[in-house]
Amino acid sequence: MAKVIRLYESLIPSGNAYKVSLLLAHLGLTDEVEVVALDILANPPETRRPDFLAVNPNGRIPVIELDDGTILAESNAILCYLAHGTRYLPGDALGLARALQWMFFEQYSHEPYVAVLKFWTLWGGLHHKRPEDIALWKTRGQAALHVMDHHLASHAWFTGADYGVADIALYAYTHSAGAVGFDLAAVPHVTAWLDRVRAQPGHVAIKADPTRA
Amino acid sequence: MAKVIRLYESLIPSGNAYKVSLLLAHLGLTDEVEVVALDILANPPETRRPDFLAVNPNGRIPVIELDDGTILAESNAILCYLAHGTRYLPGDALGLARALQWMFFEQYSHEPYVAVLKFWTLWGGLHHKRPEDIALWKTRGQAALHVMDHHLASHAWFTGADYGVADIALYAYTHSAGAVGFDLAAVPHVTAWLDRVRAQPGHVAIKADPTRA
Repeated sequence: MAKVIRLYESLIPSGNAYKVSLLLAHLGLTDEVEVVALDILANPPETRRPDFLAVNPNGRIPVIELDDGTILAESNAILCYLAHGTRYLPGDALGLARALQWMFFEQYSHEPYVAVLKFWTLWGGLHHKRPEDIALWKTRGQAALHVMDHHLASHAWFTGADYGVADIALYAYTHSAGAVGFDLAAVPHVTAWLDRVRAQPGHVAIKADPTRA
Repeated sequence: MAKVIRLYESLIPSGNAYKVSLLLAHLGLTDEVEVVALDILANPPETRRPDFLAVNPNGRIPVIELDDGTILAESNAILCYLAHGTRYLPGDALGLARALQWMFFEQYSHEPYVAVLKFWTLWGGLHHKRPEDIALWKTRGQAALHVMDHHLASHAWFTGADYGVADIALYAYTHSAGAVGFDLAAVPHVTAWLDRVRAQPGHVAIKADPTRA
């Protein structure tokens, strides 16, 4: 399996990029990877300029580069590549499908609300957004947290008996949901799971915002 | 591997459910699966009623049930489960990750625009939607088609040398994009790929709308 040598991520903290950094830390690979941090708040964003579009035509981070020149995009696909053959990704058909179920849930029903509200709250100027959009993000994001809470009421982790890529994917934005107004007190199984994730060997927190040092 | 015995989908044609039906047809399993068609246009939608929320707490179709009672949600996770060990899903780490890259692209950068515009155009009453939302769906959906076209300019399929789950996932809504106003003439590699998909052994078209017979 080709080795990862470079991680394209963003200058301001990105939960999607944090997923990759967190798994690299668990795998003890952090020091082997060069990080290229792009300014997504620039005009145009550095992720939408020709040199980066040649790397990822979809203009999004994170992206990894392997030592044979292979480029791989999409945070959750990157997690599956890096975790392949390790304890963080189930190897059987059903275990893999369950992990993927929660990762597609994360990208479709969770991130577009929880992460988007976080972005506009912290970096985008939330007061410029339409009140009905803000209300939608809050309602749907909170609903996603309740779907997670329902599962965690009877399971320690999102896939099988062990912590793995689905937990990493869902932790990336859930851990900061309370800070942008979601009600974590209403989802006690989620808050207990957040603590279990933080207690995993090799856990690292999301990076600080270098633009607000 | 447990066998699929039931498919929960929607009464009106759903591209996400069609993905599963198309793969079942390729695998010759169509006749072994009971289809439960839910009315998502009812008030409340049948997918948001207690009996279905007990099946999928996220209230979305498609969902499959296996012969051991296992429930699996999320169209692209279902594709990966059903295709496991077949020619439709790469077995190596990088091949799997490339398929997943395009399936996450589909759910994050394509479906929320192409499928959403289709839904409101055909069933939701597009004239009730905000013009700026419609413009966003058109712009972002067309951009997704161009990302696909860029890849298909130098590749026959989305993953490796063969047709597979990533092609199925992207075909589900791309094949009807022209009918809801996207410019397919601008993406000739996409239209040629649509023809190649239709020529695959066992291909079936999306079902007709039974509410407009």
